[in-house]
Amino acid sequence: MWFKRWLLGRPLATAQASHERLSNPVALAIFSSDPLSSVAYATEEILLVLVLAGTVALHYSIGISLVIVGLVAILTASYRQTIYAYPSGGGAFVVAKSNLGEAPGLVAGAALLIDYVLTVAVSVAAGIAAITSAVPELHAHRVGLGLLAIAVLTWGNLRGVRESGKIFALPTYLFVGSLGLVIVAGLGRTLFGSAEAHPLPSVPATEGLTLFLLLRAFSSGCTALTGVEAISNGVPTFRDPPSKNAATTMIWMACILGGLFLGITALAYTYGLVPRPEETLISQIARISLGGGVLYYLMQVATMLILILAANTSYNGFPRLACLLAQDNFLPRQMRNVGDRLAFSNGIFILGLSAALLLIIFQGDTHALIPLYAIGVFLSFTLSQAGMVRHWQDRKGRGWRKKFAINLTGAVATGVATVVLAVTKFTHGAWVVIFLIPLLIGMFKKIQWHYRMADWQLELTMYERPKNPPPNVVVMPIGSVNRAVVIAMDYVRQRAHDFRVVHVDVDPDETAKVKEDWDKWGTGLPLVILPSPYRSFLEPLLDYIEKVREENPGGWVTVALAEVLPARWWENLLHNQRALLIKAAVLFKFRVIVTDVPYHLGPY
Amino acid sequence: MWFKRWLLGRPLATAQASHERLSNPVALAIFSSDPLSSVAYATEEILLVLVLAGTVALHYSIGISLVIVGLVAILTASYRQTIYAYPSGGGAFVVAKSNLGEAPGLVAGAALLIDYVLTVAVSVAAGIAAITSAVPELHAHRVGLGLLAIAVLTWGNLRGVRESGKIFALPTYLFVGSLGLVIVAGLGRTLFGSAEAHPLPSVPATEGLTLFLLLRAFSSGCTALTGVEAISNGVPTFRDPPSKNAATTMIWMACILGGLFLGITALAYTYGLVPRPEETLISQIARISLGGGVLYYLMQVATMLILILAANTSYNGFPRLACLLAQDNFLPRQMRNVGDRLAFSNGIFILGLSAALLLIIFQGDTHALIPLYAIGVFLSFTLSQAGMVRHWQDRKGRGWRKKFAINLTGAVATGVATVVLAVTKFTHGAWVVIFLIPLLIGMFKKIQWHYRMADWQLELTMYERPKNPPPNVVVMPIGSVNRAVVIAMDYVRQRAHDFRVVHVDVDPDETAKVKEDWDKWGTGLPLVILPSPYRSFLEPLLDYIEKVREENPGGWVTVALAEVLPARWWENLLHNQRALLIKAAVLFKFRVIVTDVPYHLGPY
Repeated sequence: MWFKRWLLGRPLATAQASHERLSNPVALAIFSSDPLSSVAYATEEILLVLVLAGTVALHYSIGISLVIVGLVAILTASYRQTIYAYPSGGGAFVVAKSNLGEAPGLVAGAALLIDYVLTVAVSVAAGIAAITSAVPELHAHRVGLGLLAIAVLTWGNLRGVRESGKIFALPTYLFVGSLGLVIVAGLGRTLFGSAEAHPLPSVPATEGLTLFLLLRAFSSGCTALTGVEAISNGVPTFRDPPSKNAATTMIWMACILGGLFLGITALAYTYGLVPRPEETLISQIARISLGGGVLYYLMQVATMLILILAANTSYNGFPRLACLLAQDNFLPRQMRNVGDRLAFSNGIFILGLSAALLLIIFQGDTHALIPLYAIGVFLSFTLSQAGMVRHWQDRKGRGWRKKFAINLTGAVATGVATVVLAVTKFTHGAWVVIFLIPLLIGMFKKIQWHYRMADWQLELTMYERPKNPPPNVVVMPIGSVNRAVVIAMDYVRQRAHDFRVVHVDVDPDETAKVKEDWDKWGTGLPLVILPSPYRSFLEPLLDYIEKVREENPGGWVTVALAEVLPARWWENLLHNQRALLIKAAVLFKFRVIVTDVPYHLGPY
Repeated sequence: MWFKRWLLGRPLATAQASHERLSNPVALAIFSSDPLSSVAYATEEILLVLVLAGTVALHYSIGISLVIVGLVAILTASYRQTIYAYPSGGGAFVVAKSNLGEAPGLVAGAALLIDYVLTVAVSVAAGIAAITSAVPELHAHRVGLGLLAIAVLTWGNLRGVRESGKIFALPTYLFVGSLGLVIVAGLGRTLFGSAEAHPLPSVPATEGLTLFLLLRAFSSGCTALTGVEAISNGVPTFRDPPSKNAATTMIWMACILGGLFLGITALAYTYGLVPRPEETLISQIARISLGGGVLYYLMQVATMLILILAANTSYNGFPRLACLLAQDNFLPRQMRNVGDRLAFSNGIFILGLSAALLLIIFQGDTHALIPLYAIGVFLSFTLSQAGMVRHWQDRKGRGWRKKFAINLTGAVATGVATVVLAVTKFTHGAWVVIFLIPLLIGMFKKIQWHYRMADWQLELTMYERPKNPPPNVVVMPIGSVNRAVVIAMDYVRQRAHDFRVVHVDVDPDETAKVKEDWDKWGTGLPLVILPSPYRSFLEPLLDYIEKVREENPGGWVTVALAEVLPARWWENLLHNQRALLIKAAVLFKFRVIVTDVPYHLGPY
């Protein structure tokens, strides 16, 4: 207990929950860390596919990036509709469930749960990559460092990080500022000729430059869009008028995202850079633009910070979504528990554990994790936009046709992207997610069915309460006659009519001793001796309990145990684990109640 | 349960215990498997030390073997005295404890326990080496094969192998016969010149030929003596007159042991063989003597069989010794339990597990295990002989001086050997055993002290039984009002005067629902609502129980739990583990009793 206090801090009262409202610049920083941080790896992922087709393919990087920025614009317009329609926060699960029904809602829910886990794994892996690019000696320790980061995030969230906004705003602006500097400095150098022009590097082609390859490159770049929905989930935290402020912030976010992403892609192209396994692309760019000095290291630190911050946003989203699912009985009810530091402890813990497992399985390699990532994000985008389409169809309202058209464009665009992603990335890992989603939905349904059946069986309206309480027989097994037994007997005797003390005859010497002691201390009560030809202690006792149960149809059998509890844990090994065995054996018998009368040995 | 039956067979009644008496030839085979099997590796261990000093040192092998055979003669004479003095079986623990006192008895007991484990590990490792010498492809799998052998031995003994003697006699006579053939054929070849004389191989010396080295070689050879005490433990199983038959058998055993050991050493010398890592020495000898045909393979199989049989003798000795120690409360009382197949199941299981661990740690390497082995054997020899010396001093009787002299010779000889072993093998692994023995003794004493203190606290003669049973308050925590709760209430109500149903207010919505339902189903009983500002369910409940306890000094508090038990194990994950938490939390509170009223959900 003291350990928990020391680790997590003293409990917080329900009334202490924070209701801080955020100004637009602060909200921008907090909700944009997830989408903006993906700039740190999106361009690299595009180039990783393009280089397969050799030097000439690299020319397509700019075009692909422009398509993705177009998608950002469409999604931003589409989500602005959601912000106005769901001022209390419109996550994909809520929008899909309330407009399209339970099944699409569960698909979105499952996709989002997977996403949150992947956001943590990918962001942490990429954040560590930012550091190991600057300090290559750490490359060998990347899995350990990643696990450490996840542990710190989990711990911080279990403590219940108090979102005093401004602290969280710092890394985002640091990242935007330093990356902006990199781009300005880089473009300046190139345009005004202070650096010589870099020719495109000569890369041997291993695959043909097919449409499929270009679509694969586009799919890889789609990771740039992960997290753009964050603002629409957080509308209530904006200052009044929340919807308007959120919609404005959304546009700012989209402009910064588009600008940084295009800038990075353009610089990579003009510098003639290709991905290298030991150093991230963005680190290569920064090294050239900033010259490798203090500013370069600041840039790497800012990259790591914003990526860790992006991972942290999942620690808000995952437990909240798990709680929503648990409220509908799709997940265990424990997910609804708010811990004593006002955090959904169970959800936080499961998220940390799953992300850590992923990081270990994929050895902290961002490129291996990415193909699993975007598919779930785009699936939830599509369902969310489709939900909005249905929303406008159903509600109509003033000017609904325009809103309908915007969301329809969003739904179609993200839907097409989802299909492209699923097809081009299927063999690279997306299949895992595509199989996992129905598995999770099956689990949701199974859990809900269990709760429904349990509630039905516990329902009181149909219950016929017996007029007279059923009779009760108390059976107390003893191994010897000692103080613990006598105390337990005295406890039982004052309230039981039918009380039977039994001894299983495992060892004739022991039995003789018990009989002798019973004459002295048994106060006239008869002692039942059960024969045990095979020296088993448990089976004759269970047979006897069964017999008593049959003699009293509808009645109770109470098994009273005089349990000796030592003062130190290891001493438990020295006592026959008979009490434990009995408890486990009768747990599943109907109408059998266990009463544990402890006798605590003192320390000596 | 069915699995246990299938694995171990149906239970055996106490009356089915076997009391078979053994004829001398059968007894010789059964009790000699342990000492005779050590011939399979003893000579090799001597040579392994001697080769360190180069070719010239190998000449000493014959001399060292003669000293060891002398030691066999002394020990045999000494143990014959024990056989007559302890016709009911005189193990080192019994002899040392009854004559020298508890402390030396415990030293012998600890040394023997370690020995039994090492006998299993060494014999199995050497038995597998016999097979991998014949089939070198299996060498890489030696640890796996060894673990398999231990698993089979443990399983067989848990089943309670019925010692229908003759089956066990076979491997021993097969081994003696085939090894005799090897020696006769080999010596015949050498003497009558059918094979050319082998010169001693030229080995470079890496250490000087010092007295210390010769003593180390002698220490290594002492493994030949392990197990010679077996007959003295088993006197009661001999036919009438048991002591005389056992004493005669002891001489036969000593002669065969001495003959085989000397024969192997002589052949190794005349063939000019040195140990090789991939093939045992005895396999090399057999290959030359028998020419590598069917007889050679038969010899290897016989070697493996007798070594496995030797390991099996520990499965009799270890559990019996553990039971003896447990009878004196030096080990947990569970060691006294005879399983339903009439075997000391706990001891057998612990022996198998410890030997398996040793085999893994030492990677199934006989040579690495040997230095740990002999020290414990010789320590128990010495204590046993010293006990006999004291025995004759105390009892005297007809012709005691001669018996005294024989045992004194035995005690001094084994005592000197023990010191030599401890010194020369200390750095090679004997230190482990030398540190382990006091550790085990400390554990024995600690366990005995615990039982003494527990018995003292449970003693009834000093107990003042209260005239009136102390009062009792029943506290029943509920999370909602359902069928399980109502049934538990009806159970408690019929026998409790002071009954308090409590609900912890974790969630105001839940509490409102409980209150509403309580009005309908609570039958007029008041409902106690406990506030919980920090949303903890457990702490307010524990505080309340504490308060009730303080209000009723000397009385009981019964915590009644309405526990919902699902039909399938995984469904337990879906129910709040509150019942479990409460049970764990109140387990260590004085005067608090837990009553579990189960409600079994049906399958659906």
